Amino acid sequence: MTVKEKLAVHAADVEKYLGECLDDLSIPEGLLESMKYSLMAGGKRLRPVLVLVWAQMLGAKKEAVLPFAASLEMIHTYSLIHDDLPAMDDDDLRRGKPSNHKKFDEATAILAGDGLLTEAFGFMTKADAPPADVVEAIALMAKSAGSAGMVGGQVVDVSYTGRDGVTLEELRVMHSMKTGALILSACKSGAILAKGAGATADDVRRAEEYGRLIGVAFQIVDDVLDVVGDEASLGKPVGSDEEMGKSTYPTLIGLEESKELARKYVDEAVELLEPYSGEEADFLAELAQYIVDRVY
Amino acid sequence: MTVKEKLAVHAADVEKYLGECLDDLSIPEGLLESMKYSLMAGGKRLRPVLVLVWAQMLGAKKEAVLPFAASLEMIHTYSLIHDDLPAMDDDDLRRGKPSNHKKFDEATAILAGDGLLTEAFGFMTKADAPPADVVEAIALMAKSAGSAGMVGGQVVDVSYTGRDGVTLEELRVMHSMKTGALILSACKSGAILAKGAGATADDVRRAEEYGRLIGVAFQIVDDVLDVVGDEASLGKPVGSDEEMGKSTYPTLIGLEESKELARKYVDEAVELLEPYSGEEADFLAELAQYIVDRVY
Repeated sequence: MTVKEKLAVHAADVEKYLGECLDDLSIPEGLLESMKYSLMAGGKRLRPVLVLVWAQMLGAKKEAVLPFAASLEMIHTYSLIHDDLPAMDDDDLRRGKPSNHKKFDEATAILAGDGLLTEAFGFMTKADAPPADVVEAIALMAKSAGSAGMVGGQVVDVSYTGRDGVTLEELRVMHSMKTGALILSACKSGAILAKGAGATADDVRRAEEYGRLIGVAFQIVDDVLDVVGDEASLGKPVGSDEEMGKSTYPTLIGLEESKELARKYVDEAVELLEPYSGEEADFLAELAQYIVDRVY
Repeated sequence: MTVKEKLAVHAADVEKYLGECLDDLSIPEGLLESMKYSLMAGGKRLRPVLVLVWAQMLGAKKEAVLPFAASLEMIHTYSLIHDDLPAMDDDDLRRGKPSNHKKFDEATAILAGDGLLTEAFGFMTKADAPPADVVEAIALMAKSAGSAGMVGGQVVDVSYTGRDGVTLEELRVMHSMKTGALILSACKSGAILAKGAGATADDVRRAEEYGRLIGVAFQIVDDVLDVVGDEASLGKPVGSDEEMGKSTYPTLIGLEESKELARKYVDEAVELLEPYSGEEADFLAELAQYIVDRVY
């Protein structure tokens, strides 16, 4: 199997869970429809898959962490719904379909996002792991998704748009908040939730570092793909950042150096997997390689 | 001390904590300013005070539950920010000051709300209680604030506006979702977080029932005050629901019967406090009475 096929197999578990998990919560019909419209609109399910695979590699059972894994996709989805709003990026389309507020209306889109974000924390509590570890993982997610993480990164990103003189360090910090924190936390929370199954502090540290590295690599590659074009990007229209006058890795350090930097981070991520073996370890290594292979 | 003075004393603890708790989280400056603008805009701090007083009455320490209590005010505040948005209620004013999106802008208001909601769950994890109880209390809050609770209630409320034939039962369910769930959960989470200090399942059940009853009474009284007018209402402009053609308790069952119904619920709430004594128990009884006294 190729890494894409393996990713799809893991994603299918997430897909099935996501498709059913909101149905029995007594959510008002119109709101449920709007939440599911965006939640089930496709995507690679990368974040939940990272939770699952790290947890399983470290000894946890898939069923034990699936609700927590699903919560990361709910958080990712809510952020896309709110980012698309007219007051934000004002995007009419998301993955080739009308964005939530175009399909429904703005009020519904705001509330669908609020609902998904709130339910996400509810599903986190369903993790079948020692309660102290669940609390630790929830605290991590709140920090990563919150105002010093994903939400804060969006604010910083907007403040950088069109601004001259954004430095590489500022760009790095902004991305680490806006997209990196959630990817890092996906890996790290998977490891935290496997502590009851034997995962050690070193495992948690490696998961965090792996997540940090592939998160940065992912962002650099996305910036590169914005220049060279690729269907496999994270879903942004080609050239969008360029057109808005944003600083990107290629504009700051050049195309070739960006590609080399992404390669370097991916190599470091793969090295972190050395203590592990088995299909999950192989998959995590291939997944890291796949990120950067897209630009070679 | 009057009940209002006692409420203010408890609220002062919450106020102090809220004023400082976001400062050391590395939140981008503009976002932090917007979050604190709404969070520190006043209000009775009823929800966090209910957490504190129930927890303390059942043996928990104030410091142990203060972060969790504060999280309820963050959730309440985020809901007000998002409700005021142009796509929702389009309110330019909140408590006599410009609403968040008027003071800042819509994008900032959306993100400030998202940030407060996310941080709320982070502060819940800081409760100093047995981890299993913390997880239980977080699950309760996610359910109450989520798409089958507060967020869902907002959707149902909008769907009822201007609609003929809303029944008393439909109105009751809508309010129990939109405002009741959070008040119920304030009391119940306080009791849950006191389980490690000796609170029993019966205590938790009484807290839940007290919260349910005063929540309904509060809503009925607010509807009554919309008709008869009172400065002490929950903050809605007098007559606003009437003008929008909404069904309310007085329009459905009449003014006098509404007042009697609120009185009945408050009496039941006070009865639930019979097993308890001391200043917290006295305060909770006086608080319930105070709700309904406003219309007599």
